[in-house]
Amino acid sequence: MSNTKNVQAAVAYHAGNVNVDELPWVPYFGDAKFKLLKVNPVTGQNITLLYVPAKMQLPAHFHPGQVIVYTVQGSWRYLEEPWISKPGDMVFEPAGSTHTPTAVGDEDVITFNIVEGTLDYLGENGEIIARDNWESFLKRYLDYCEAEGIEPVDVTAF
Amino acid sequence: MSNTKNVQAAVAYHAGNVNVDELPWVPYFGDAKFKLLKVNPVTGQNITLLYVPAKMQLPAHFHPGQVIVYTVQGSWRYLEEPWISKPGDMVFEPAGSTHTPTAVGDEDVITFNIVEGTLDYLGENGEIIARDNWESFLKRYLDYCEAEGIEPVDVTAF
Amino acid sequence: MSNTKNVQAAVAYHAGNVNVDELPWVPYFGDAKFKLLKVNPVTGQNITLLYVPAKMQLPAHFHPGQVIVYTVQGSWRYLEEPWISKPGDMVFEPAGSTHTPTAVGDEDVITFNIVEGTLDYLGENGEIIARDNWESFLKRYLDYCEAEGIEPVDVTAF
Amino acid sequence: MSNTKNVQAAVAYHAGNVNVDELPWVPYFGDAKFKLLKVNPVTGQNITLLYVPAKMQLPAHFHPGQVIVYTVQGSWRYLEEPWISKPGDMVFEPAGSTHTPTAVGDEDVITFNIVEGTLDYLGENGEIIARDNWESFLKRYLDYCEAEGIEPVDVTAF
Repeated sequence: MSNTKNVQAAVAYHAGNVNVDELPWVPYFGDAKFKLLKVNPVTGQNITLLYVPAKMQLPAHFHPGQVIVYTVQGSWRYLEEPWISKPGDMVFEPAGSTHTPTAVGDEDVITFNIVEGTLDYLGENGEIIARDNWESFLKRYLDYCEAEGIEPVDVTAF
Repeated sequence: MSNTKNVQAAVAYHAGNVNVDELPWVPYFGDAKFKLLKVNPVTGQNITLLYVPAKMQLPAHFHPGQVIVYTVQGSWRYLEEPWISKPGDMVFEPAGSTHTPTAVGDEDVITFNIVEGTLDYLGENGEIIARDNWESFLKRYLDYCEAEGIEPVDVTAF
Repeated sequence: MSNTKNVQAAVAYHAGNVNVDELPWVPYFGDAKFKLLKVNPVTGQNITLLYVPAKMQLPAHFHPGQVIVYTVQGSWRYLEEPWISKPGDMVFEPAGSTHTPTAVGDEDVITFNIVEGTLDYLGENGEIIARDNWESFLKRYLDYCEAEGIEPVDVTAF
Repeated sequence: MSNTKNVQAAVAYHAGNVNVDELPWVPYFGDAKFKLLKVNPVTGQNITLLYVPAKMQLPAHFHPGQVIVYTVQGSWRYLEEPWISKPGDMVFEPAGSTHTPTAVGDEDVITFNIVEGTLDYLGENGEIIARDNWESFLKRYLDYCEAEGIEPVDVTAF
């Protein structure tokens, strides 16, 4: 592995603050947008803020790993579940769950999301038609920065 | 392992919402308080909201595992670091970091915290004088519920 | 979540030994077989022994999460990589890697595998044609036990 | 965080094989020795082979995080548990467990160990008297290499 570098050297040995104001909202589905806060290319953990306009529904997806969602603003639910998540609530998703997010109420929704692995978007027969992971979120972010002339933050630094 | 039970049976196969209004603020250090949202006794992951009054400083501590903090309200810093974290920011703490949290500014601080393992509180010579983990947070929560006559939520259910 | 049970109650607070002799080799691809040692339905972690006959090649697959492989017996490689792994070696696979395992040499291969999430088997155009995770491995194991009249071990107990 | 580097750049995007023959046995407690295979300074995960002479007992210790042990050679137990682990068996240790390892039988023991976080060695009253984690294992390994004139492998590369 002579072409690899040292993760020890890449770690600051210090807690780092991600200043949310330095990160752009990157277009996602329709008018939904995300901010990419941190990705870990070793474990696949990816951490985002997600913005979803009031009443918008996102595509159904499957998670191979665990997901934690903290609701920052607005209310939302999964079509498959009986609850509604409101600001201050946390949603815990065990590995292997499938669901369809939708914003409810009149307020736009913002969530803070910690995903282990991928989001696998599903077609009508449950087949995987698209996926997002640390690498695709990073590409979307860097492509957007390049198109908009924004200097990207290194979200892979620790 | 005939005395153990089945985690498969314990998992709902569904994402669950933790309703923050159903959880009490449990006294922690001085006027600091926490809400315990979820603990995983297999991995040691513990998820809390932490309330720290304006200007309060918490004890220095070490983390054997990784920590993610999302700042909900107020501003805070670690005495050892140059940054200030404000609402919407995220702090990422690699395993093995040590620091002393303090609230800054006039507003009380609330953070959402995902800790892998323990917080090891340190004495003047760096020795470990106390620790919190999934088990001690759970005990603090259940003891408080019993003393106050509150029906506890099962924060170990998935 | 009134229909869920308590993971705290499901955890023995003790280290448990998985006796490999109590677990059958379950047919997998062709003459390849696996023993399922443990699955965690919350995190998606699945732990197996994999037996691959000498010179057999397995299908190409993608991992959304991290994988650790310890080589117990025989030698093997990924078609995409320059190294050969022999007994006592460990292979570390960062999240998002894709590869095609093949046994090399004259000896049958046995590996000990810790997978976070899924194995996504890929078709000729990189599309996902099948996947295995904690749930499908568990189903394969339980179905085999039922067909063979074997009393299954509860590999979801901690 | 201008003094940190890029973990993305540090990741090979490929599975890597750790050749066990390139790693020395590093002295640990008494005649016990370890080989350090990989450490992750972000998550604190540390992966080792441990050699324990027949009949040797190691100090009692606590784990804040989860541990997986695969028994390669010899038989061993924890004084606190009823089972004996033999070659091919796996021991799963939930976060927060405490135990005292001892080799049993006439054969020297070798185990493959994946530890999330630290080993906290305990004194007679349960106080923490020493600890090992990714950083201390790495220091022990690098110090030994320097003392013996061995070129170290970069066990933090991915």
